[in-house]
Order: sequence, then structure tokens, then C-alpha cells
Amino acid sequence: MSERQDLAELSARAHAALSRTGPPTLSNLRRALADAGLALEDDPRLRPMLKRARGVEPDATLDAATLGQLCDDALGLIQRALDHELIIPDFVRFREQLERLFERASVERGGTVADYIPQLGRVDPEQFGVAICTVDGQRASFGDARTDFCVQSCCKPINYCMALEEHGEQKVHSHVGREPSGRGFNELAFNALNQPHNPLINAGAIACCALIGAGMEPADRFDLVMRRWRELSGGAKPGFSNATYLSERATADRNFALGYLMRERGVFPPDTDLIETLEFYFQCCSIEQSAERMAVVASTLARGGICPLDPHQSIFKPRTVRNCLSLMHSCGMYDFSGEFAFSIGLPAKSGVAGALLIVVPNVMGLCTWSPRLDDLGNSVRGVAFCKALVETFNFHPYDSLTGLPAKNDPRRPHSSSAPTRHLS
Amino acid sequence: MSERQDLAELSARAHAALSRTGPPTLSNLRRALADAGLALEDDPRLRPMLKRARGVEPDATLDAATLGQLCDDALGLIQRALDHELIIPDFVRFREQLERLFERASVERGGTVADYIPQLGRVDPEQFGVAICTVDGQRASFGDARTDFCVQSCCKPINYCMALEEHGEQKVHSHVGREPSGRGFNELAFNALNQPHNPLINAGAIACCALIGAGMEPADRFDLVMRRWRELSGGAKPGFSNATYLSERATADRNFALGYLMRERGVFPPDTDLIETLEFYFQCCSIEQSAERMAVVASTLARGGICPLDPHQSIFKPRTVRNCLSLMHSCGMYDFSGEFAFSIGLPAKSGVAGALLIVVPNVMGLCTWSPRLDDLGNSVRGVAFCKALVETFNFHPYDSLTGLPAKNDPRRPHSSSAPTRHLS
Amino acid sequence: MSERQDLAELSARAHAALSRTGPPTLSNLRRALADAGLALEDDPRLRPMLKRARGVEPDATLDAATLGQLCDDALGLIQRALDHELIIPDFVRFREQLERLFERASVERGGTVADYIPQLGRVDPEQFGVAICTVDGQRASFGDARTDFCVQSCCKPINYCMALEEHGEQKVHSHVGREPSGRGFNELAFNALNQPHNPLINAGAIACCALIGAGMEPADRFDLVMRRWRELSGGAKPGFSNATYLSERATADRNFALGYLMRERGVFPPDTDLIETLEFYFQCCSIEQSAERMAVVASTLARGGICPLDPHQSIFKPRTVRNCLSLMHSCGMYDFSGEFAFSIGLPAKSGVAGALLIVVPNVMGLCTWSPRLDDLGNSVRGVAFCKALVETFNFHPYDSLTGLPAKNDPRRPHSSSAPTRHLS
Amino acid sequence: MSERQDLAELSARAHAALSRTGPPTLSNLRRALADAGLALEDDPRLRPMLKRARGVEPDATLDAATLGQLCDDALGLIQRALDHELIIPDFVRFREQLERLFERASVERGGTVADYIPQLGRVDPEQFGVAICTVDGQRASFGDARTDFCVQSCCKPINYCMALEEHGEQKVHSHVGREPSGRGFNELAFNALNQPHNPLINAGAIACCALIGAGMEPADRFDLVMRRWRELSGGAKPGFSNATYLSERATADRNFALGYLMRERGVFPPDTDLIETLEFYFQCCSIEQSAERMAVVASTLARGGICPLDPHQSIFKPRTVRNCLSLMHSCGMYDFSGEFAFSIGLPAKSGVAGALLIVVPNVMGLCTWSPRLDDLGNSVRGVAFCKALVETFNFHPYDSLTGLPAKNDPRRPHSSSAPTRHLS
Repeated sequence: MSERQDLAELSARAHAALSRTGPPTLSNLRRALADAGLALEDDPRLRPMLKRARGVEPDATLDAATLGQLCDDALGLIQRALDHELIIPDFVRFREQLERLFERASVERGGTVADYIPQLGRVDPEQFGVAICTVDGQRASFGDARTDFCVQSCCKPINYCMALEEHGEQKVHSHVGREPSGRGFNELAFNALNQPHNPLINAGAIACCALIGAGMEPADRFDLVMRRWRELSGGAKPGFSNATYLSERATADRNFALGYLMRERGVFPPDTDLIETLEFYFQCCSIEQSAERMAVVASTLARGGICPLDPHQSIFKPRTVRNCLSLMHSCGMYDFSGEFAFSIGLPAKSGVAGALLIVVPNVMGLCTWSPRLDDLGNSVRGVAFCKALVETFNFHPYDSLTGLPAKNDPRRPHSSSAPTRHLS
Repeated sequence: MSERQDLAELSARAHAALSRTGPPTLSNLRRALADAGLALEDDPRLRPMLKRARGVEPDATLDAATLGQLCDDALGLIQRALDHELIIPDFVRFREQLERLFERASVERGGTVADYIPQLGRVDPEQFGVAICTVDGQRASFGDARTDFCVQSCCKPINYCMALEEHGEQKVHSHVGREPSGRGFNELAFNALNQPHNPLINAGAIACCALIGAGMEPADRFDLVMRRWRELSGGAKPGFSNATYLSERATADRNFALGYLMRERGVFPPDTDLIETLEFYFQCCSIEQSAERMAVVASTLARGGICPLDPHQSIFKPRTVRNCLSLMHSCGMYDFSGEFAFSIGLPAKSGVAGALLIVVPNVMGLCTWSPRLDDLGNSVRGVAFCKALVETFNFHPYDSLTGLPAKNDPRRPHSSSAPTRHLS
Repeated sequence: MSERQDLAELSARAHAALSRTGPPTLSNLRRALADAGLALEDDPRLRPMLKRARGVEPDATLDAATLGQLCDDALGLIQRALDHELIIPDFVRFREQLERLFERASVERGGTVADYIPQLGRVDPEQFGVAICTVDGQRASFGDARTDFCVQSCCKPINYCMALEEHGEQKVHSHVGREPSGRGFNELAFNALNQPHNPLINAGAIACCALIGAGMEPADRFDLVMRRWRELSGGAKPGFSNATYLSERATADRNFALGYLMRERGVFPPDTDLIETLEFYFQCCSIEQSAERMAVVASTLARGGICPLDPHQSIFKPRTVRNCLSLMHSCGMYDFSGEFAFSIGLPAKSGVAGALLIVVPNVMGLCTWSPRLDDLGNSVRGVAFCKALVETFNFHPYDSLTGLPAKNDPRRPHSSSAPTRHLS
Repeated sequence: MSERQDLAELSARAHAALSRTGPPTLSNLRRALADAGLALEDDPRLRPMLKRARGVEPDATLDAATLGQLCDDALGLIQRALDHELIIPDFVRFREQLERLFERASVERGGTVADYIPQLGRVDPEQFGVAICTVDGQRASFGDARTDFCVQSCCKPINYCMALEEHGEQKVHSHVGREPSGRGFNELAFNALNQPHNPLINAGAIACCALIGAGMEPADRFDLVMRRWRELSGGAKPGFSNATYLSERATADRNFALGYLMRERGVFPPDTDLIETLEFYFQCCSIEQSAERMAVVASTLARGGICPLDPHQSIFKPRTVRNCLSLMHSCGMYDFSGEFAFSIGLPAKSGVAGALLIVVPNVMGLCTWSPRLDDLGNSVRGVAFCKALVETFNFHPYDSLTGLPAKNDPRRPHSSSAPTRHLS
């Protein structure tokens, strides 16, 4: 009863909000939801509603009860979208602002494409895509956001989370440290405990690979990883570049050296098959994603392990995600990590194919992709986009301390971390 | 007119709130404000009100207008305090929780007192004080929170802020870097640009000292620093330990070595007097504070450069504080910085006399003081208190991603950075 | 004619010298040669003479002509031995002195047997053998000097010489450096040119292995190495421990890591098969020698590449040996190399099975073998023996500067490097 | 009696030798001694003879007895000189060979003059002088061999010897190590015992300075050093550049830093005055010598601590000199030390003013001086001269192993370290 009353009230509120945008019709509803950033054709939460709407006349006036039945499970989401109560209330303006940032970053022409394997070197260096997904599943994308690329090092935070979920923090960090190394990503140094410094450098990532799917056959381990990526992406299936995998494996002197050094130091669990582990690592690096799907993955981290497009399921525990974001904050950008933490302040992870995964906690996930890399291995346009983003919005964690309106805050007011300013 | 109406309305709200706690008397007002965490005798914002209250009968019933006249400038603050609208609405409970954390940390008996100069070694190792001050100026303290100690390395973030305010970010960072060093605090290493790695290691702190009060006489430079500490503390004057200063200067082989190496590398501005700069640095380290005053300093950083006890004045610019907090987050805890950032996640700075300055952005500043240090030079009880704090409250920056009530959130609901959880 | 006269004169001198020792008989000749340090049954130079002597009555008096015919090719050597003109004129006394040094070193009980592979750990730690061979082929041995052990790192100088002979100095040192590394023997560091620091650390030794027998089948390469060892030992065949080889290969994480790092840096010639090269290196380490045979190898180096037992053939060029001794002098004793060069000053190479190869240029070669190793991997008794040796004899290169008789000089006077002291 | 007979015999031999060169006259004697390399006007050993010869008619025939009386104390030296029994028997030819090497090295135009202080930068870069002095006091010089220059780092081996003589090996090496550092000369690194690596890098040289003249007043300490240099030079007084000293002291940031670091590590003896020690070090570096006088210093080391021009006095003990030469061999040429040891193999020490001190043990001392330095701080022409020297003569310690006449051996046959080659 009470629930029925709630639904009636929710229907009434949604209907009222819709009516404020024009006649309460299906076509108006579609337009209003798109304006709010919801991707109608590509959002699992809205799929049942769209199915039910097939027989509905687009321009027929809907009453509150009909609207409620049409929306059903999605009614809460739709009401909040219509009432501008999603995390980014004015998404139309936000999308325009992002588009200008995208255009600003597009003019960057510096950097070169990674070419240590031919598969990376052959890509068109001018490609550039950006996509975002908020913690409420609002989405926008620009440029080549649907082109697939290899995730490369962007697989490292995901593998770290999987290892944490399977073994717990204590066990994982008995094999790999959790501090910046002060060294390059493929450095031969180990920490004082003879461990790799953290899971986001090659050695640490290889150690995590040795922990995932313990006791499974190689095919099953990789299958497990692919399933997890699919869930993180809201159900969209990732690709795989076998050519990249074969090339990586063939040119991996440094990674083989790291593997042998780690075995010598006893980094791996007993009974680890070193060659199998390295091959598994190369396979994870060869997973293919688009910027759009990666933005959803990033938003899952921004929301503490729950995918905004499938919010009924917790993929990673909040503690797992907290640990992952902490390390992305301090160690995610190779040798640029310290500078990135200082000036951008957001957890991020870059990959050598040009991807950059960025998390704005409690707000959204982003992915930029552009193959030109700077000397430290980070995407030139990706870093430029992040700088412009933080110049425009108060997304740096220490940006909004006093609530003085120095920068744009696109968030719903009461979700802001800034207290209102009181002068007494 | 409109203003007078506002005052009348505010008086009415305050009167109503006070009446809910019992008869609306002065003595009830005092008790209620104390319960809200306001330190009546020691809060510059309430001083005029207390002066006016001298002639008022404690148990006489006050009407709204009289209450309004009594409070005058502080009326807004008092209304919010009575209405539980300060950043920590239930301060009584919060204080109790903190007290239990204080007691938990008190049992730690490990570590040893620094003894590289006799002045440090002579201190009673059992002393332990904790104080907090919220961004609304709510305060609590436990143990030896009024005992003075030398700030030592806790002067580094303040000096960095002063250098930034005087010269701007670009100039300051042409002399000192802004990344973790991966080394000890007094390490001889420099970054790739031949700069000290950051302003929170000795070399970088000395570089900052060379920038403060350019062109001033030594006495005036030090006076400038003391004035800034006083403002940061809400008007309370800091002390100075001349014995510590003389001892530091006499045993400073490493710092002299650092100074000469820096001069060789051209770290200093031209015309820097090296010996004078080093002496200035030792003087800054010998400033004395209590945990109570330091908590106010920390709260000023938590509020973006505005002291909660004197909110009409901006001491440091928000951007200055942002930069300072970023470096405290990544580099403030000597060799433990990476681990602290991972597990605690709060900007902090430790000093060798046992102080620990911690900032919970937008919430509060803390200071713990306990002379027993671990091997890395951090206060054993201070670190234990921080761990307990973050286990109890969702103060880790990535703690409250999904709004699941996993931990206590003591903050006023709409100031939380956690979105409410929406399951649709 | 002239030659016949020479032989007659030589026969006369030999006969005279023999007569001074007693009746000029075969048995007296045998005794006199043994006193001079010549190993009758085991010296290829004397084998034809011994064959001819089979029919000779031991105590029959020999005239000069008969003695000359008996000795034939060896007449020059025998004359010099009888006339005390070999490099160590008084070999009886020298052998006694060495025996006392051997006994002094025997009391050392420190150190532990290497046990990173079981084959090394199983050896009796109390074994101790010392052997010497002068540049004139005079020989003495003490203790377990005929027990076989694996040469391990003692193969490195020989492999370096072989690489030099095959490719020349310029080519070899385009792959490997020639300076002390300041690091441990299996260190991962490389020099400024991205080469291993020198051929006597693991990485450099592996690089040399890649250069030996270029283009040959694995079996032929190893056969080549074995032939060279045989020549260096005066014709005695070395052994091979297949168990050690298999164990080395199975536990060689560090060496595999080094190999991959070197391939990454382009240390190897093109078309090098990495795994094959590493296996070849492990095989070289598993060659077995006795202290007696190793002393002959060392004496070949002491004589600039000519084996004293087969002086008609130059095995290595003088320049090759000069380079090898220079590196043994500065880099042959792992982390103890600098200290050894300072206090002993002789080219040496130690191996982890307990062998120590020492060269006294122009005087003799030595080998000590004792499995107990110090922390730096050098044989405890071997180092003790070297110290005693240099305390007793003026073998340090800067020992005999003024010709003051501060120490024993066992050498033939006019072969000494010390000028006679002139006081005007 | 027996002595008188000896003198008579010696006089007879000298007279016979002189007569073989022409009529036995004083003028012939002068010419013959000059041909043998003895510097008549500048050799303390010949001074009494020259004094007695003042009244002698140059072309009058001398009989043996008169010759003996004339020579008196120097008779032994003169007989050996006339009989070609000095260490370099054919000195005329040797001088010609050296002159060609000098001319070869003169064509080098590379390198630049050190200019970290103006006094060094002002010197004419084209100057080049070479001088030698054999262990028998035979001398030759070429080019600017009489121009004074500051010894700079060439003071380090002498200071090390003085510290050894005053305190003994054990004490000195409780303050400073004795191995190559693998680092630059002014490096901040210390060895595992927290000592400077060796006495020939700046830190170690400063440590030695703290040990010399313990308890003396500054003026007396410096006087002591000057006296020792005078003795080492055969009685010639060294100069001092006060301008260089003042400049060195004023620009010595690195050395001050080293000094403070060393004090921090407890390198110095208790009661060391750091500033005084550093000033003493700068003074030692500012001593002035010419190539001619430095060659005599080097020859004193080549002869184990006895100056060839004053052979009745031992300035340093043989053991002291042995230690010094060992360290010059491994550490004397800054970062080029390893390569120099490999390819030249002679103990040497370079200074930043362009001097290079080289010792051919038991043969001679050399000094080259040319201000152009290579990137590692060594004199370009000095190193070129050394290379040419070792290409021409068998002076590399492992050059003459088999006695094969691959290179020139200018030494008196029976002083050679090479055994005659025996093919049986």
C-alpha cells in the first residue's frame, strides 16, 4: 500500500516535471531523458521501458498513471532525471562545456605513437576520442569514442581489484607493495621487502596476474577477466587483439627479466608457472575497449564498485575500490604521477596505446584515447584534456574548500563537498 | 530594513531552538553552545557577546529580541549552533567518539623520543595530547593538549604557503619540485632539474625559507612568520624555544651540507645569504605551539585559508592551500608518506618533536602530540590515532563512494560528499 | 756443427752440476730434478727422457755424452734445473715455506659452503688443497690438490681470453666493458654504454659466451672450450659435472633475468640464441678441475699464454693475457676486489665452489681450493693463504721497489724486478 | 784497507770507461755524465764533485787516482753512469724516443681549461711540459717543464703518505676506505662503513688532511707539508699560489658540503676543526710545482720512498709507498681510473690544473703538464702521452710476461722483470 502510494506520488512528480518541458508525451519524454544524459538505446536500465513504449503513440498525451506504468522499474531514475536531480543537473550545459574542452585538447599535435611493437605503431595518430559516464549513468562522448584500442596498462587497476576481491588486502600486499616507486614503470627496482613497489607498475601487475584465478586453467582465468570487464562496462563485451598479444609476447625481454627476478625474490605464490603468468599478463594488456565502454568502467570505480548502468549489483567492494583509487592517485601516470597528483589530483591510469582512464569520485568516470604519447608514456591530448577539465571544474579534491565560487561546480548542490560559506 | 527583518527572523529561530533545550536563559545558552563545541572563553567570535552578557542574570528568561541584541554579530553562528547546523551537528556524540579514539591510541607504548639534540631528549615521553577544530570552529581537546612543543617540520607547510603567497606558484616551483622523493627527509638527492624534490623535505624547506621576506632584515622576516602563525591560530600567540634553536644550529651538519649542495646547484635566488637562511630555518623549526593552537592552524587549512575563529579574513588563497594539501597528502609523513596516503588518505605533516598536523578538508583540522617516534620519525600514537579515526569515520577521500552506511559520517548531511544511494 | 758443439757444452755443464750432487747416476738425476720441482711422472717435457731411461741401470755412472743423449730435447731444461737456474732456484726451501703457509691457512674454520644448489652444499667443507706451478714448470701441491671441483666463475677469465682470441679486443669490448662495477657479481646494473661492466661478472661472462665459437653447433662450442682447458693444463683433460650443470640451469632465475635484460639492451650479437647461450654458460661453470691442474692453467697466464709444460705453443697471445690479468687484478674477487688489489695486488679469480686462481706474473700460477666461503663469496682459506703468501714473499707488485731485503724474494736474482740498491 | 782497495778498483773502472769515450778529461767526463742523463748543475749528488772540479783544467788528462779523488762520494754513481749500468743504460736514445712521444702528444688540441675559479681559467691552454726522473736520478724534460702550476689533486697521494707515516695504516683506514668508488671525484657517496671510499677522492683527501700534523698550529701543519714536498723534490722548494687558495676557498660549496656530511658521519677524529681542515686542504691544493720537480717527486715513489737525488734518506717507508701506488693504480684518474688501469696499468694521479703524475715502479717517475682537460678532468695531452709511452715501451705491468721482444725494454737487462725465454 505504502509502496503503491509512493509509486503514485513518484508518478505524479515525474508527470509534473515532464509537463514543465512541454506536453507530457512519449516523444517529449525521450527528448527530456536525452537532455539529461541518459542514452536511451544503450542503457540497460531503460530497455524495459523502451520495449513497453513500442506501441505508444509518440505525441499522445500521457497521464501520470500511464507514465508510471510505462516507466515501472525505471520510474525513480526518470523522475530524478526530469526533476534535474541527477548528479549533473544541467547536463546539456555540461556536455557543451566538455565539448569545448575536447576541442581545446584536439589542437595538441605533440608526442609520438608507441612503436615498440608494430601493431601499436600502425594506428592513425590523429584519432582522438573522449567519453564520460556519471555515477547516475549520464553519458556523453566526442570524436573517436567508439573505436577500439588495447587497454594495455589500463588493465592493471582492474587486475588489482580482482586480486583483492579473490584474496583480500593482506594476502595481495604480502606479494606487492602499495607506494609510489619513484621509478619508471618497467624499472628493475624492488622495495625494501623485495616486492614490486605497487600493482600499477609492470612487476606489480605481473604479481597480481599470478594471484587471479588461482588453480584455474589458463582459458578459464582469462574468461574470468573478460566477464569482469563486461560487468564493469554495464554488460558490453570487450574485444581482444590477438596480433597485439603475439607481438607483446615476442618482444617482452624486460618483462621476462622482471618475471625471473621476481621468482628469484620469491614474489610469486608457490607453484606459480612463470611463463603462463607472463602470457596471461600479455593477454590482459591485449583486451580491447572503446572510450565509451571505458568511461562506464571508470564510472563504476567512481561509484565505489557499482556500475551506474546496472546498480543492483556490486562488482567490487567499496574497500577494494578505495584501495585501487588510492594507488591510481599516487602511481597511475608512470613518472608523471607526482605532478599529475599535484596539479590534477584525480585517480587515473594511462596505457601505452593512448588510453587514459580518469575517475572523479562520486561524480563520473572518463576515458580519453589518443595515440600520441609524451616522453613519459602518457597520452598528450589525454593529459591536456585533464588539465582543461580541472581548470574549468572544481574537480581537484582540494579545489572547493571554502565554497567560494572560484570555479564551476556542475554537481547537484547538496552533493557538493563544499560547505556553504558562513561569515559569522 | 530587509536586514532588520533578517535579524528578527534569525533571533526568532535562535530563540526557538534555545527554548527546545530548556528555559531560554543565558546559562542555558552557554551550556548549549558548549555542547555544540564552541569554546566560550576562547573563541574570538563570541567575545563581544560574552562582554555584553556580563550584566545579565544567568537564569533570567530572555525574549527573542533581547537574545538577538545580546548575540548581535554572532547571531548567525549561534542560531546554527543551536539548530545543529554546524558541520558536526551532534558534537557531544562526536566528542565522545574522539575520546574513545584518544584512549585507544594512549595504550601504544612503542617508539622512542628523538634525541639528536638534548632539548628533544629531555621531554617526558608519556605525554599525549589531541585537539580538533572544525571548519565552523567547534573544538575539543584531550590529554596534554595545552602543553607547548616545537613545531619542527610542521613549519614546512606553513613556510611553503608563505612562499607561494609572496612569489606565486611559478616562481616558487622554479626553486623546488613538487613530487614525492622516494627518499628520506634529509636525503642528499635532488630531482632531475637539480631542485629539492618538494617543500616538505629539509632541502625544499630551506629553499622556501630563502624565498620568504625577500629583502627583509632577519628580525623582520622572523616577525613576519610569527604574525602568520598567530593569524592561523585565530589570534593566539606562538612561543619560541631559544634553547632548541641554539641546539639545532649547533648540530646541523646535514642541513649545512644540504645548504652548500643547494648553493652549488644554484637552487637559491641570487644574493641569498646561506648562513642567514639556515638560521632562519632553524628558528622556524623552534617555534612552539600546543595541540590546541595547532588544531586551529589545521582547521584554517581545512577551510581553504580562512581561520574558522576569524572568518572575515583570508590568510592564504584557496589555490595556495590546495597546493599545500596536495603535497601534505603525498609527502608529509617522511618515508611513511606513501603508506599513509594509501591507508589514511588525509593531508598531514609530522614533526620530530612528536606533533602531527592532520587536515580533513571541509570538516576539521587536528593535531596530535606525543613524543615517542617510530623508526621513520612519525609519532607512534599520532599515527595510531589517525588509523583509528579513519576506521571509525568515513574521512578517507575514497571512503564514501556509494553512500552505503559502512562507516560513521559525523557531518551535516548536505555537506557530505557522498551522494544518496539510488537503486534505480 | 755449432749446434752439436752447443749440445756438447750443455751436456758437460749438466754433467758437472749433477756430479756436484753426488755420483752422476740416473737415480741421482731423478732425485735432483724432483728437488728442483720437476714432476717426473707428470711432466710432458720429461716423458721422452723417462722412456729412454727405462733400460738404464739406476746407479750406473753416466758420462756427459750419455747424459746428453738421454736428456736430448730436455737437456736445456735439465741443465738449468741442476744448475739452480730455474725461476725458483732453491725449490726445496720454497716448498717448505709454502707448506708452512698451507698449514697456517688450514686452521681457518670460518665461512660456509655455498648451497644455492644441492650439488655444492653436499661437499665436505673441511677439504683444502693448494697447488703451484712456476713459469718453468716447477710444481708443488698440498692437501686435497687432486680432488676435482667445479670451476664455476673461474671459467670467466678463460672464456674472456677465448673471446678476445676469436674476435679481437675492439669487437669484444663493444659488447662488454672493462672496469670494476662497484657492485656485486650478479648485479643488474650496466655501465653508461648499456654494457655489462666487465667479463668477470655474470652478465659480462654471459656476453663472452655469446661470442665464443660463433656459428658453431652447441656441442662443437663446448668441445672447443674443453680443448682449450686441456691445452692450458698442459694436456690434462678436465672433467664435467652434469649434475651441477642441470642444477645450475634449474635455479638460474637471476641469470635468466640478466640474459633477458642484456637482450633488451642489445648486448648480444645479432642472431644470438639466448637460451642456448645461457646453457653454454652453465656448462662452462660445470667444468671440473683439480687444484693441481688449475695451477698449471694459472702458470700459463703467468707466462703470457705459453704453458710451462708445453712451451713450444702459444695458447693465448701476450696482449690477450695482459688484458685478462688487468681485469683479474681489478675485478676478480667479487666485492672484495678492491681490497684484494690493495693488500695482495695479484690477479686472481674466485669461484663459488671454493676455488681461487692466482697469478704471480713471470713467477708462477697457484690454485687454492676450500669450499668454505666468506660473505662475499670468496674462499676463506684461499684468501688467508694469499695474505700469508704476500706477507712472506715480495709478490705484491709494489713490494720490491727499493730492493731493501724487507721480504723474501725466492726468485732467481737477475729475474727480479728489484734493482740492486745503490747508495751513491 | 779493503775499502781503499775498493775505491782504487772503482776508480780504475771509471777511468777505463771514461777513456773509452775519448781522452779521460774533465770536459769529457761532463759530456759523458750528461749523456747518461745526470743533470750536472742540478743534482745534489754531483755538487761536491763540481765544486772540487772548479780548479781543474777541462782538457787536462786525468789519471785514475785523480779521477777517484775528484769524484769521491759520487764515484760509484759516476762509474755506473760511465759503464752504462744505470737503470736506463742508453739514455741518449731513450731521451730521443721520449722527445718523439712528446711531439706526438703535442698535436692534441682537444679539451678545455678548468675554469671554476678564474685563476685556473686564465692560464695559456697551449702550454705543455713533460719531465722524467729515473730511479737512478737520470733526468730529461721537454717543453714548458719549468713553468709552475698548482698541484691541485696531485697533493692527495702525498697527503695520504704523510697521514700513513704519522698514524699507521690501521688508524688512517679507520677514517677512509681504500677501494675505487665507482663514482666521480667529488661525489657525495660514502662506503658501507660510512667512510669516504679512498684518499684520492675529495672526501678522502679532506679526511687525510684532518690527520696530518695532529695537534699542531695551522702554520706549522702547512710548514710540515711544504718540508715534505721539498724532500720529495730532492731539495727544491715548492711555490704557493695564494690567489688560487683564496679562490678555492670562496667557491668550495661542494667541499664544504662534503665536510659537513663527513662530520655528521663521524669521519673525522674528535676535536677536528672542520673549517680549519678545509682551509688546510685548499692550501695543499694551491702548492705550486713544475713538471721537472714533480718528476723527481714521482721518481721518489718509483723508488719506494727514497729520492734518487738524495738516496741516503728514506722519506716514506716502502709499505707507505706500496699503499699509495696501489690506490693511484686503481683510483688516481677520477672516472677514467678503471680504463687507465686496464690500458696503461701505471699508478698515476691527475690534477685539475693539468698535471699528471705517473710512476713506473723501479724505473722512473714522470710528470706531464698541459691545462686542457677532457670531460673527466684529466689532461688530454697527459693521457695521450701515457698511451704513446705504453705503446712504445713495455711499461704496462703485464706487458713483459714471456720476454718476447714485442716492445722496447729500455731498462738495464738484469733489472727487467722478464725472464729470458727458454724453449725447453
